[in-house]
Amino acid sequence: MAADPESSGGPPPLRRRAPPCVLLLRHPPHFTLIDRPLPDGFRFLKPWESPLPFDDFLASDDVRSAEAILTSQGVPVTADMLRRLPAVRLVLTTSAGLNHIDLAECRRRGVAVAGAGEVYSEEVADLAIGLLIDVLRKVSAGDRYVRRGSWSGEGEFALGSKLYMKCKLYLLCLWWLFHSQLGGKRAGVVGLGRIGLEVAKRLEAFGCTVSYNSRKKKPYVLYPFYSDVRELATNCDVLVICCGLNEQTHHMINREVLLALGKEGVIVNIGRGSIIDEKEMVQLLVQGELGGAGLDVFENEPKVPEELLALDNVVLSPHTAVFTTESLSELCNLVVGNLEAFFSDKPLLSPVLDE
Amino acid sequence: MAADPESSGGPPPLRRRAPPCVLLLRHPPHFTLIDRPLPDGFRFLKPWESPLPFDDFLASDDVRSAEAILTSQGVPVTADMLRRLPAVRLVLTTSAGLNHIDLAECRRRGVAVAGAGEVYSEEVADLAIGLLIDVLRKVSAGDRYVRRGSWSGEGEFALGSKLYMKCKLYLLCLWWLFHSQLGGKRAGVVGLGRIGLEVAKRLEAFGCTVSYNSRKKKPYVLYPFYSDVRELATNCDVLVICCGLNEQTHHMINREVLLALGKEGVIVNIGRGSIIDEKEMVQLLVQGELGGAGLDVFENEPKVPEELLALDNVVLSPHTAVFTTESLSELCNLVVGNLEAFFSDKPLLSPVLDE
Repeated sequence: MAADPESSGGPPPLRRRAPPCVLLLRHPPHFTLIDRPLPDGFRFLKPWESPLPFDDFLASDDVRSAEAILTSQGVPVTADMLRRLPAVRLVLTTSAGLNHIDLAECRRRGVAVAGAGEVYSEEVADLAIGLLIDVLRKVSAGDRYVRRGSWSGEGEFALGSKLYMKCKLYLLCLWWLFHSQLGGKRAGVVGLGRIGLEVAKRLEAFGCTVSYNSRKKKPYVLYPFYSDVRELATNCDVLVICCGLNEQTHHMINREVLLALGKEGVIVNIGRGSIIDEKEMVQLLVQGELGGAGLDVFENEPKVPEELLALDNVVLSPHTAVFTTESLSELCNLVVGNLEAFFSDKPLLSPVLDE
Repeated sequence: MAADPESSGGPPPLRRRAPPCVLLLRHPPHFTLIDRPLPDGFRFLKPWESPLPFDDFLASDDVRSAEAILTSQGVPVTADMLRRLPAVRLVLTTSAGLNHIDLAECRRRGVAVAGAGEVYSEEVADLAIGLLIDVLRKVSAGDRYVRRGSWSGEGEFALGSKLYMKCKLYLLCLWWLFHSQLGGKRAGVVGLGRIGLEVAKRLEAFGCTVSYNSRKKKPYVLYPFYSDVRELATNCDVLVICCGLNEQTHHMINREVLLALGKEGVIVNIGRGSIIDEKEMVQLLVQGELGGAGLDVFENEPKVPEELLALDNVVLSPHTAVFTTESLSELCNLVVGNLEAFFSDKPLLSPVLDE
């Protein structure tokens, strides 16, 4: 973006005109949660404070002057919305995924888009590994086992008793908690972007061998590349879904891919629910045709398929991969930084490059 | 151990005499669980198959001829037992810890001891990291939240509704699930043996800085060393207990150490329950003076302090750190290998070096 010729030597352009209007499609969760006030120097339009229905609110003169939209995961910025808000020049999102923004329409209209940048990558990768260990080593299942008193209830197996010595029963009680070690597992990373690379780095520290699938083979990456995700699954014990959701990735992890992963295979999804054909996955998990799943995202979240709630080989996480106090704070800085940069005609801090 | 002069050229000594008697203090769990038969070439004495009480069983002639004892976690080999079984020359254990064996008495009597060697190190380290991520990112708590229907129950916060836009309430429902990122945490490893080193390697991949406490500073280790565990705690956000239990480490993690770790501090214990003063730890967790705990071991397991069952900042694991199908199989090989080596007068595969 070219520098404003007036800005050199003079006061910054931000201070010389009316504060830009920013439409909030939702109370920005990050600011709310850490009690951070919205930044000065902007006028924020809040549909939930208006008595008007959302459609009428969008049509009001005030809102039609909005120059930016701030949104987050799950709240869509559609072509229709952009057409109705012709002054918008910037869409900001606080989510790692971008599937809620009509990027093609933004491009067509010359609307800039800023995302969450790298703020979340490590958080999400950490949770991916946490879910994987949890499924393989049954951490949540073990925690439930202890909390419901099943462990301490094994009184007849007291140390030194004949039953304890014989111990087969005691051990069989625990057997369902035993599973598989992480070291030596062949792990496939689907989508080797920022998050995927962080996941791969962690997997290596646990002694896993990493290969990946991605739109294109990445230069400078030494992990084996599979252009076909089913072939990747055939050659892996674990799949970690790290890609974004788009037309190409919707239901990319279908029945065939899951069957290729197999009865001992584990799938971890920290991308978006609809990347997996959830109905098929649930069926295969129930039938024992798929070994286990660690899921932070679901097709119709917060709805979670009923069948999953009864399974001990799945770990269910309420889409919290990005949420830590540290990332919330960092993201607030990024939102403010992007707004200030854009309206000072400086480059965005985290532009979304439409690769 | 010197090689048997008769063994060179001739048949192995194992085949030339009556099979050595091995006293099993308990049905060896590893063999049971993977349906592995006990090895040929030995006579195994099984107290649970005898009508005699254990004490009388020990006094029988048959048992007094036992040359080896095979035990596992929690089943003690005491000085008294060794005195009553004068023919014993070898004690084998399948557990990672050794606190159930009177090592001093073994040394005094010239009884060799073989442990689990490195079989478990990676398994245990994996679970330590799993517990840590679980506590920091509330994986098990999130799983409970989803399974009890709390997430999907937030119907009034449907996407696009005014309440959703306002969203403060929605987020506050989830806020307790947010916690702290792993990257940048200062992690203290207590006991930098095989397991501790594997834990440290994994922590580094998550962007943690590692320091450690150990009996002595380790040569060739670059992590900062703290001779005082309380000082280590003062300088750490996370403590991972990886040491063995002995007189020096019993209740080493006392109230002062836990207070030094602090309100945001997290403790992970995959060593032995009694290394931590459990009563004090429980009190500090309940009072919010300690941030969280991931526990695979407890002072009086399988009894778990009642107060912990109600806390969402603790993860409770029923002492499963060593149990994976892979480690069970490897350990059976090690037990058989140690028995065959010892009675062929070859060096033990995993001698316990009394450092």
